[in-house]
Amino acid sequence: MMEKTAKHVFLLGMAALLPLKSIAAEPVQPIEPVKNINLAQAELGKKLYFDPRLSKSGFISCNSCHNLSMGGTDNLKTSIGHNWQQGPINSPTVLNSSMNVAQFWDGRAADLKEQAGGPIANPGEMAFTHTLAVSVLQSIPGYVNEFRLVFGDDAINIDRVTDAIAEFEKTLVTPGSRFDQWLLGYENAITANEKAGYELFKNSGCVACHNGPAVGGSSFQKMGLVQPYQTTNPAEGLAGVTGKDADRFKFKVPTLRNVELTYPYFHDGEAETLTEAVDIMGRLQLGKTFTADENAKVVAFLKTLTGEQPTFALPILPPSVDATPKPQPFGQ
Amino acid sequence: MMEKTAKHVFLLGMAALLPLKSIAAEPVQPIEPVKNINLAQAELGKKLYFDPRLSKSGFISCNSCHNLSMGGTDNLKTSIGHNWQQGPINSPTVLNSSMNVAQFWDGRAADLKEQAGGPIANPGEMAFTHTLAVSVLQSIPGYVNEFRLVFGDDAINIDRVTDAIAEFEKTLVTPGSRFDQWLLGYENAITANEKAGYELFKNSGCVACHNGPAVGGSSFQKMGLVQPYQTTNPAEGLAGVTGKDADRFKFKVPTLRNVELTYPYFHDGEAETLTEAVDIMGRLQLGKTFTADENAKVVAFLKTLTGEQPTFALPILPPSVDATPKPQPFGQ
Repeated sequence: MMEKTAKHVFLLGMAALLPLKSIAAEPVQPIEPVKNINLAQAELGKKLYFDPRLSKSGFISCNSCHNLSMGGTDNLKTSIGHNWQQGPINSPTVLNSSMNVAQFWDGRAADLKEQAGGPIANPGEMAFTHTLAVSVLQSIPGYVNEFRLVFGDDAINIDRVTDAIAEFEKTLVTPGSRFDQWLLGYENAITANEKAGYELFKNSGCVACHNGPAVGGSSFQKMGLVQPYQTTNPAEGLAGVTGKDADRFKFKVPTLRNVELTYPYFHDGEAETLTEAVDIMGRLQLGKTFTADENAKVVAFLKTLTGEQPTFALPILPPSVDATPKPQPFGQ
Repeated sequence: MMEKTAKHVFLLGMAALLPLKSIAAEPVQPIEPVKNINLAQAELGKKLYFDPRLSKSGFISCNSCHNLSMGGTDNLKTSIGHNWQQGPINSPTVLNSSMNVAQFWDGRAADLKEQAGGPIANPGEMAFTHTLAVSVLQSIPGYVNEFRLVFGDDAINIDRVTDAIAEFEKTLVTPGSRFDQWLLGYENAITANEKAGYELFKNSGCVACHNGPAVGGSSFQKMGLVQPYQTTNPAEGLAGVTGKDADRFKFKVPTLRNVELTYPYFHDGEAETLTEAVDIMGRLQLGKTFTADENAKVVAFLKTLTGEQPTFALPILPPSVDATPKPQPFGQ
């Protein structure tokens, strides 16, 4: 991550030497490098993110459904949880999720820290409890030492666990996409066709919701604004949080960063391809039917939003000891 | 891996300057650095090793059950397969597995390449077929390019897939353990207590089977030689391969390298702790009941066999495209 940030700073620096383009006037902004990271806390959080011992089965980690080899998603329509339960909703990407106005499709968690505790205790996901997860960690000398190092004393609790995971997740940004290079002044970073796609994206109204550095993530919008969205998925969206009927089918607008990697699309994962997603969004949200040529241009633009993926050494987890509570994958 | 190998070569070099100990006389030998690796092929193999698209569900990869964050195992009694099926046997570690006389507990695969194809097509594990797995890879431009780079042409077939995975697995050795440092002449690398454990390990006969650089892995032996082993696990061992009644309950002697990380133990995963495993091995295989003090010493020795874990960047997988066959996690 260090290397990447340096490269990004270099790009930003170089941009200053190029003919000035008014970035500020664009509805999409470049991703800024990560700042103010507590590195020791993020390193601990990385281990926890990859540790399946935070699940009842000892088999499912954060990375199982937000796989950092695959755009921070599982690339499944809906996820697989404990005992192979079928999840109710598509796993959103963890990449650039620090920029989201809230977490989960329905925004029921205010931030990354609050989100991180959810799946651990969700019976359909990791199916554990915070108390049991903490007990496991407390039994492992390698973790006890690392929590002490990071937090100044031995206490391990869910507050610190989710703090550390959130700190790691804050590092998962993807600067350096070809589109950001273009925003920063490198005219040749995207093709004429991709630029035409961006113009369509702006002129058709996509940017009303998909804007800012994350190209989304900053608001809740009704799925099926102009025409109703047909789905068998029972998710109600924001209404489940606020209790307001007006919030039915309002979902957090997903980030379009790395959207080439985060298939399938929508909260129900029903759109398998970008072509399909762009077509449905155009018709249902904007009342606009993109021609095949227009659709292809928008898709070409969207693929320029793939940034540098976070790269880091696969963490080596501290081993359990004799006293560590055993995972219970089967029949209990 | 480069860094590690260099360090190990350095250690081997330094050992030449130290008072000569007769390493050759010891039944356990240091792990040698990896040589003759086709690096491009190993890098491709690393991606394949981490790619859940080699499974029917799109959720299970080689790394799911041979997790390189956890000693190359899943640390479960028996593994979780497609649709949460309970596996029949404990997942052996992939670490140092290139040194095994054959692969799987019953030796049914001659080498790493032959092994790698097994779980992909096993209905209880990744539940895919070789043909379908190859179709998925053939649809992904990033893989097509990389196979061409590595093998000289575009062909993707199971032969090349398993060649690449095996090449990656050959890199997964763990030199540099404290015990190897001691073998190489650093007297203080292990404590007097650990050394006493090694003496017990030698004098009690453990080394009859657990010897060589992998401290095991070189022969098949009957589980329950002196006293019968009681288990509800139906695995028959080598007899299932040879059809010979004399081979019933003969299993490949597992490596003891990194045994601190590869819990639980035995082919059925029934021994939860090293203390338990040492006790059972002593009584059933050697007719020897270790005292608590002796057992603790042997366990202390075994923990000196934890080597440097392979560290490498988590691979970023090339994305599927519209034409890529979709994973089928549920109901089909």
